[in-house]
Amino acid sequence: MTSKIIGVGNYIPSEIIDNEFFNKNLFFDEKGKKLEQDNAVIAEKLKEITGIEERRYASKELVTSDLGLIAAKAAIENSKIDPEILDYIIFAHNFGDVPYGGIQSDAVPSLASRVKHQLGIRNNYCVAYDVLFGCPGWVEGVIQANAFIKAGIAKTCLIIGAETLSRVSDVHDRDSMIYADGAGAVVIQATEGNVGIKSHVSASHTFKEKDYLYFGKSNNIANLSDTKFIKMTGRKIYEFALLHVPDAMKKCLDDSGYKINELSKIIIHQANEKMDEEIVKRFCKLYDASAPKDIMPMVISKLGNSSVATVPTLLSMILNNELQNHDIKENDVVLFASVGAGMNINALVYKF
Amino acid sequence: MTSKIIGVGNYIPSEIIDNEFFNKNLFFDEKGKKLEQDNAVIAEKLKEITGIEERRYASKELVTSDLGLIAAKAAIENSKIDPEILDYIIFAHNFGDVPYGGIQSDAVPSLASRVKHQLGIRNNYCVAYDVLFGCPGWVEGVIQANAFIKAGIAKTCLIIGAETLSRVSDVHDRDSMIYADGAGAVVIQATEGNVGIKSHVSASHTFKEKDYLYFGKSNNIANLSDTKFIKMTGRKIYEFALLHVPDAMKKCLDDSGYKINELSKIIIHQANEKMDEEIVKRFCKLYDASAPKDIMPMVISKLGNSSVATVPTLLSMILNNELQNHDIKENDVVLFASVGAGMNINALVYKF
Repeated sequence: MTSKIIGVGNYIPSEIIDNEFFNKNLFFDEKGKKLEQDNAVIAEKLKEITGIEERRYASKELVTSDLGLIAAKAAIENSKIDPEILDYIIFAHNFGDVPYGGIQSDAVPSLASRVKHQLGIRNNYCVAYDVLFGCPGWVEGVIQANAFIKAGIAKTCLIIGAETLSRVSDVHDRDSMIYADGAGAVVIQATEGNVGIKSHVSASHTFKEKDYLYFGKSNNIANLSDTKFIKMTGRKIYEFALLHVPDAMKKCLDDSGYKINELSKIIIHQANEKMDEEIVKRFCKLYDASAPKDIMPMVISKLGNSSVATVPTLLSMILNNELQNHDIKENDVVLFASVGAGMNINALVYKF
Repeated sequence: MTSKIIGVGNYIPSEIIDNEFFNKNLFFDEKGKKLEQDNAVIAEKLKEITGIEERRYASKELVTSDLGLIAAKAAIENSKIDPEILDYIIFAHNFGDVPYGGIQSDAVPSLASRVKHQLGIRNNYCVAYDVLFGCPGWVEGVIQANAFIKAGIAKTCLIIGAETLSRVSDVHDRDSMIYADGAGAVVIQATEGNVGIKSHVSASHTFKEKDYLYFGKSNNIANLSDTKFIKMTGRKIYEFALLHVPDAMKKCLDDSGYKINELSKIIIHQANEKMDEEIVKRFCKLYDASAPKDIMPMVISKLGNSSVATVPTLLSMILNNELQNHDIKENDVVLFASVGAGMNINALVYKF
């Protein structure tokens, strides 16, 4: 028994935020020292490393659960199921619903409950809960749903990943240019067939790494407010990811029984283009292979890093033929991988 | 394959808050009308209904994850396991870490990651995540862990429930007298034996009920701030619980194969004493039985409603012989039940 994907959907927010959006921001480093370079130069350097040219923000009247709802509706429609048959709605996020201009997270009731309500589902035995697992939360939600299916307590599950990082980013931190908003969702269903989830790996590195990604004060030390923002220790995360993500991917692929040359795609969390490329390079090196051209679709240049939303958004774009040069065909074997706050890592091998 | 409890722990916060604590509060109803009765009379009435005489608050320097850590340490010690063998740390909460005097929730990294870090666990394959499922979140975490065990992806799991409702309650709302802080935890382990989890039921009622418990503005309408607090529509919750919780408990008990006269205890979420008594009465009535004396241990009079923490706290107190007139012996069959924001309900039958 395993799970197969029967529907995908996403929501790419309407507001396109280019680098000029940040032109007037006063950027400080993490010690509060003003950055001396021009913001345009900072943006150009950031683009060189992360690949990000622009990103999307949710419009002011929407919150994370609204984004998740749109993606969920698309995934349900794509799956052609009656939503009343859903056994689980699992919503991965990290900050709850944060209203535009506000600082309070709201996750009571859970975002999954909000989506279920908006979908008009009357089946009370469709269990709606939220999972917090950093950026890898959506992949983890899929792993949890798959466990429920294997355990015999579910047959059909909707897994949503949505985030509005624009609502928790510090305008005085150049990393704010990385963050984006977005949502993706899939419907998975129990199958005895040859397709579906073949293996998965999850890890939480907390011994030294707990605070590599955290919620902290503004880089503008003149700002005495206690308000917290999403914060990254970029260099540490980069080194951590390069050291551990390739190993997790290898463990997952080896568990699946497939060989590296049988992989059609690697769908990786869109955190940083250079980092992702280096992860895939090192992963291939573990097999003495070189990374095949076009194995790793990337959309970070236009969409930024929308946390839990990047992987399902990208998957949905490929399956809906919205991405040039990338498609997934029957029998293709795809490796998913994600890394983020926790520090958590996960990977999943899937046969289409 | 099922799961058995191998260790329990709790943390009952040190600050005893009696009713006099609220004497000077200005209470308004949900429409902003000042309550005319004396606060002492309001407190007395509240006690008559909910049973709450006093409640516990965490001391100012502690946050929810700190409470959870103390309970987790106690549960691990009680289980006598090496924490390095844990496959999962599941932390149920609803508001993250809210510092004393602050309004921002902090759940990045997840509270489970924070606890795992503080426990000093080096095993990266111990997966740490948070679950948001209203007050039934802790029971749901146990159900999820049990599914992971059944699915073969875990053998030993730590499930923590902790909350600091004192940090999100509205001083202008008399319901603030209900809320409390606390933490409880258990370690469960795979077993092929005759003891352990026998059945479980989970439900999310969102069609009409989504906002029966919500995060909303102060009852003091003169307060123009956008700050939100935990809010209950008490009457609706009461009616909802009486209508649906007994049915969920019956479904769970029937699924377990046990008869009502085989039940030794009902451990129910400590939300409201009168409501809990009425739920158990109605549950028994579904079997044409009357509720046996002492079947339902209650600690709400001294501990208040600490959300996800009430059920594991109560279980831990009984198993550690801290509760007069209540014990659990070998072969005892216990029914757990919980209800809260979502609106979520769950139940679980366990043989000791």
